[in-house]
Amino acid sequence: MTAPSDAPTGVWLVGAAGNLGVTAVLGAKAVSSGLMSPIGVITETEAFSGLGLPAIADLAFGGHEVRAGTLAEAARANSGGGGFLPVGLVEALADELEATQARIRPGTLRGAQPQLRALANGSSVGEDPDGESAVARLSADIQEFREREGVGRVIVLNVASTEPVPNELPSHVDALPTSSLYALAAARAGCPYVNFTPSLGATAGLAAQAFADAGIAHAGADGKTGETLVKAALAPMFAVRALDVMSWSGQNLLGNLDGQVLSDPDSKEAKVKSKSAVLSEVLGYEPESRVGIDFVSSLGDWKVAWDFIHFQGFLGVPMRMQFTWEGCDSILAAPLLLDLARLVAWADARGESGPLGWLSMFFKSPLGEHSAGLSDQFRDLREHLGLL
Amino acid sequence: MTAPSDAPTGVWLVGAAGNLGVTAVLGAKAVSSGLMSPIGVITETEAFSGLGLPAIADLAFGGHEVRAGTLAEAARANSGGGGFLPVGLVEALADELEATQARIRPGTLRGAQPQLRALANGSSVGEDPDGESAVARLSADIQEFREREGVGRVIVLNVASTEPVPNELPSHVDALPTSSLYALAAARAGCPYVNFTPSLGATAGLAAQAFADAGIAHAGADGKTGETLVKAALAPMFAVRALDVMSWSGQNLLGNLDGQVLSDPDSKEAKVKSKSAVLSEVLGYEPESRVGIDFVSSLGDWKVAWDFIHFQGFLGVPMRMQFTWEGCDSILAAPLLLDLARLVAWADARGESGPLGWLSMFFKSPLGEHSAGLSDQFRDLREHLGLL
Amino acid sequence: MTAPSDAPTGVWLVGAAGNLGVTAVLGAKAVSSGLMSPIGVITETEAFSGLGLPAIADLAFGGHEVRAGTLAEAARANSGGGGFLPVGLVEALADELEATQARIRPGTLRGAQPQLRALANGSSVGEDPDGESAVARLSADIQEFREREGVGRVIVLNVASTEPVPNELPSHVDALPTSSLYALAAARAGCPYVNFTPSLGATAGLAAQAFADAGIAHAGADGKTGETLVKAALAPMFAVRALDVMSWSGQNLLGNLDGQVLSDPDSKEAKVKSKSAVLSEVLGYEPESRVGIDFVSSLGDWKVAWDFIHFQGFLGVPMRMQFTWEGCDSILAAPLLLDLARLVAWADARGESGPLGWLSMFFKSPLGEHSAGLSDQFRDLREHLGLL
Amino acid sequence: MTAPSDAPTGVWLVGAAGNLGVTAVLGAKAVSSGLMSPIGVITETEAFSGLGLPAIADLAFGGHEVRAGTLAEAARANSGGGGFLPVGLVEALADELEATQARIRPGTLRGAQPQLRALANGSSVGEDPDGESAVARLSADIQEFREREGVGRVIVLNVASTEPVPNELPSHVDALPTSSLYALAAARAGCPYVNFTPSLGATAGLAAQAFADAGIAHAGADGKTGETLVKAALAPMFAVRALDVMSWSGQNLLGNLDGQVLSDPDSKEAKVKSKSAVLSEVLGYEPESRVGIDFVSSLGDWKVAWDFIHFQGFLGVPMRMQFTWEGCDSILAAPLLLDLARLVAWADARGESGPLGWLSMFFKSPLGEHSAGLSDQFRDLREHLGLL
Repeated sequence: MTAPSDAPTGVWLVGAAGNLGVTAVLGAKAVSSGLMSPIGVITETEAFSGLGLPAIADLAFGGHEVRAGTLAEAARANSGGGGFLPVGLVEALADELEATQARIRPGTLRGAQPQLRALANGSSVGEDPDGESAVARLSADIQEFREREGVGRVIVLNVASTEPVPNELPSHVDALPTSSLYALAAARAGCPYVNFTPSLGATAGLAAQAFADAGIAHAGADGKTGETLVKAALAPMFAVRALDVMSWSGQNLLGNLDGQVLSDPDSKEAKVKSKSAVLSEVLGYEPESRVGIDFVSSLGDWKVAWDFIHFQGFLGVPMRMQFTWEGCDSILAAPLLLDLARLVAWADARGESGPLGWLSMFFKSPLGEHSAGLSDQFRDLREHLGLL
Repeated sequence: MTAPSDAPTGVWLVGAAGNLGVTAVLGAKAVSSGLMSPIGVITETEAFSGLGLPAIADLAFGGHEVRAGTLAEAARANSGGGGFLPVGLVEALADELEATQARIRPGTLRGAQPQLRALANGSSVGEDPDGESAVARLSADIQEFREREGVGRVIVLNVASTEPVPNELPSHVDALPTSSLYALAAARAGCPYVNFTPSLGATAGLAAQAFADAGIAHAGADGKTGETLVKAALAPMFAVRALDVMSWSGQNLLGNLDGQVLSDPDSKEAKVKSKSAVLSEVLGYEPESRVGIDFVSSLGDWKVAWDFIHFQGFLGVPMRMQFTWEGCDSILAAPLLLDLARLVAWADARGESGPLGWLSMFFKSPLGEHSAGLSDQFRDLREHLGLL
Repeated sequence: MTAPSDAPTGVWLVGAAGNLGVTAVLGAKAVSSGLMSPIGVITETEAFSGLGLPAIADLAFGGHEVRAGTLAEAARANSGGGGFLPVGLVEALADELEATQARIRPGTLRGAQPQLRALANGSSVGEDPDGESAVARLSADIQEFREREGVGRVIVLNVASTEPVPNELPSHVDALPTSSLYALAAARAGCPYVNFTPSLGATAGLAAQAFADAGIAHAGADGKTGETLVKAALAPMFAVRALDVMSWSGQNLLGNLDGQVLSDPDSKEAKVKSKSAVLSEVLGYEPESRVGIDFVSSLGDWKVAWDFIHFQGFLGVPMRMQFTWEGCDSILAAPLLLDLARLVAWADARGESGPLGWLSMFFKSPLGEHSAGLSDQFRDLREHLGLL
Repeated sequence: MTAPSDAPTGVWLVGAAGNLGVTAVLGAKAVSSGLMSPIGVITETEAFSGLGLPAIADLAFGGHEVRAGTLAEAARANSGGGGFLPVGLVEALADELEATQARIRPGTLRGAQPQLRALANGSSVGEDPDGESAVARLSADIQEFREREGVGRVIVLNVASTEPVPNELPSHVDALPTSSLYALAAARAGCPYVNFTPSLGATAGLAAQAFADAGIAHAGADGKTGETLVKAALAPMFAVRALDVMSWSGQNLLGNLDGQVLSDPDSKEAKVKSKSAVLSEVLGYEPESRVGIDFVSSLGDWKVAWDFIHFQGFLGVPMRMQFTWEGCDSILAAPLLLDLARLVAWADARGESGPLGWLSMFFKSPLGEHSAGLSDQFRDLREHLGLL
């Protein structure tokens, strides 16, 4: 943690060739080359300019991946007709994608769900014999990246698919869910870890212990990019007005791999739990509430959420509000990854450790102490950074 | 300002027999008699309990009105089939309504729009010969109320219909718009004034001067109860995420007298202006934006707002959000009147004067210094009250 | 079937004291007494006036019920605060409800789901020893009603809760689902039968045979009152324009007993199936489609449906449409019961038998030959009645 | 009208280089070259295959235009980032666009609104000295096209911007609105005419007379592509259920030239009138209704419509429905132009004359006798074509 201040910062993506990983890499290159303006990257706004955060151009990307294909292939598949990536961008930045591709290492298939295993396309790579050897291999990959690229520090970001909720918290490394193997590998390599998914990651038994023992920072969980983001902004309105939310019903339609994985009831359970907590945190009581998730393949990377809020006002009069959110998942999430990499690097440079609660505005299920509403979470961020 | 601490607090409603005034009076009685719980009254929540605010039961209501009918008639018209007031409440509280009715005095028709003049039903009451004599009469009414009821202080609340925007700021009392005649009367009586409408009220020339000279507090303008409330909660989400709002289009349908008055283009202009400012305040730039208001009589006191937000995210990808708000106008506004009366009484007891910016969470166009987003405005309130 | 033409027509409701049954009875009385206009009753419009349908005032109601409570109690529970029945109506028509109550007989609990059994409140009435004796008892009740009331014919309408889908079609009376026991009882009594629910009713083995053998008419299934009604009106638009519906996602929130029963996955399956067929019938192909149903108790008898339609137009451009329907279930369904009773009486008088496909506009899953879109179904109705 | 059956059919577009004209030309080429499937072209579906309609590949395009730019430029401007035309299509079909460009002649600027005049970019072309000489020139252009291309017949389609509503019906050619000059030119050339806009076209005095005298067919007015299309599909649902529509409020946001032109109150009036009639035609009464149109530039060629329907059911219970339509204007309209050109050619070959009411399903304000609801209009079309 004493790299020269002008050393680049490493960003290690677990699940690098997924839509989100690819969008983050491509987007970082597009922004730093001046092809695109950094819309959606809050740390690029004026208010954050004096913090000395690593420049986007100084982020060096690498990562783990179990899929057979390359970053460029994934980018091309999401470009042009029906895709969400701007036409021409993939071609303009082909060299950059290739350079990043050279820094991708095989992820582990230990504990992987059938859908993910299918993506590996029969490759035997990633079939680690046991948890311990998987962790050792993954950790060595990260360390090798750090040394070879000469980066001062590496932030590990989990952007892989959501795992099923395990029945019980694992106490042995062989029982750790896949996400926690990666988290443990990060801790062993001395790297801060950010969990952008609802999977257990750095919070499962041995993994959590490793971060605590080594005094390394981690943050999570589950990026707040769509319906839950709106909830976190909107629920405070009902609290501020002392209106009584009787029920809040949400329905999510999504069409990418994330949606497909979530059509598995166990994985869905993890996600739904992560999406539900915000209401009771903000309101101080538990309204009747449900969150549905459905896979609609025609939507591709787009996510449509409809929420219907039934509330009671003065003299018990029932009223209604509803919203529909139509967003592109990877486009909403990718800039948050850039923000998180830069902010966690900032925290790491200051020696912060444990769960970073002041990053709660980025997550559906924030770890560490945190405020409930979105505006208060944003204030916490700025306060911690000394911007208020 | 030196009334015994157990003296009731006077609440003087300008436009007392309108839907909002009647709902506030009826609701206050229903809550203090235990018939209804105080949903929507933020000052009744636990957090505000230690402030020593006047109890709702200790609010004494009176007011000015130009209409021919009584409070009870207005309440009955909004009760039962299609009405928004709970069935049975008007009958249960008939005595209370009658007692308040006895404290209603004729308002002034000077400068009143044809729609309001029509409500007066040919009565010659309120035809004051000039501005000065109107102010004198109105002020005397308030003072007489204060003395007869033995209330420590009187808070004057403007809940009358929206006025057209005057072409120029008036410099002579005869040119003051109606709302400012009432405001001036309040100032002359030494009473704090709250403007729950977009009319000029205490901000017009002579009226503003009167409050400044006498060191009396006032607050406004235009209660934030529906579409603008949602905007104030939602716009910060786009700011917090550095998303680029390209356009924000809002359409409001409303069916009560307010809607009818706003079908007059000049009155609508005042309202639309008041509803538009929040976006640029929160976002820091001016997106393409419009606010439409239409009168749909079938809706009665209900207001339906639809907002469509077109925004741009990372890599310039356009996305969309929309919401529909279906609320009952008077039901949403009435509890805010109780909050405002109590909080302004609190401020008056402390000798506060001038525009009370810390009440911004209640208003579409807050006077005085204020934060932009709803959560920050709520924090300002609590900070000023010493609750944080 | 040779009653004097001025004899009243009997309407026998299976599930008479449910929200729908009560609304139909109360509404018929309200309309025939002139208290209410017959909004929603298509057979009361000018176009149907020359058909000689039985007058609403000439409908005599009776029925089966397993619940402990009375019609008047059910009506009162849905009246006043939060209820959907107009205030005052129950009191004005109390005598009429009592008269109908005297014609309610205990239904059967054979095969009843736990939720329904719970409503019986421990009463041992309805515990028929076997299928055959249940059918005999139920049939005798209907026949006794016909004779005692001197009604020319009796139309039996199933408005009971939705049953789970049975695993296989039953071939023995003891294996018949509850709804089919009632249907068989109707057939034995020589009465036409209308199935307003997705339960099997007159289509299950022995029951179907009984209607065929006796040459009696029956109609169904599952009243088309909300989301599916809109689908049947809207899907033809996409067909008429040769637009390619890629996916059609529907989400239904409902809060009454119907919703509670449908929170049981087996019952939900019956309903979802019934709601899905319309798309492929109208479009001629099977788009990606799902229908969700969730119980949201705060909604009471209200049903909120949100549908999101993702379609492709010229040059493959993807577009979107969505709608939200907020309707009161019993209010939408009750007038259809009056229409159906009158129209089936008309058919019975003409000796029609078997499934009446020309009534398809009333049903989600029409029996018999029928058109697909709503407008074509309406045309079929008028054609059959000789109105075109 | 006696061209050899294998002669191509001419399609003359008034306003050929607008978004709609360009999309129609490009789309016809894309479909006939097999690059795209003919989604949205109803005459390409199985049911219409036996009619002997001219093949899309046999349509020859030409037209009038006042703009400075070319078809290819317009196509390119709507392609790629933010555009609605599929990437690559313009390049693939560049030769075809150029060939059509050679058949574009200067339109007339007589009576043109300032916004259109601005598009002409200072070119003096189109400044005809009087109405008569304009008509002569335009008519000669069409005839020359017919001869040079050897097309059997030419269908003239008006896809230019909406004109303001004239104060009175013109009786002299010099007073004719621009659209009627073109219509008159078509009649003089012996060509059937289709008015895809709400402008007067073939219905204004002298123009109407010319079609009648020459026994030539014409159709219109105003293509039914978005909100009104949905209305025509949905309003019959309320009629079929005898539900009482109390109010129907619509709000349209659009961002293309059409939207900009409609921000002029006079042009808007023509459009709003055209959009409003469908309700009273279908329902048989006039509900409270309004249609708003707003220009939102960020939407480009996309149109967003929100409709809120407030209706009353049985026992007077008020209910609500709302929909949001998000469609791409030119993409929805272009296939209708291909349908209309083919169907009007079919009619012309049969010697039909006057307003073709059986084409009502394509228009907001159908000319000639026609049914009201969309499904009935579709049936009329098939009946007239002998397909039922």
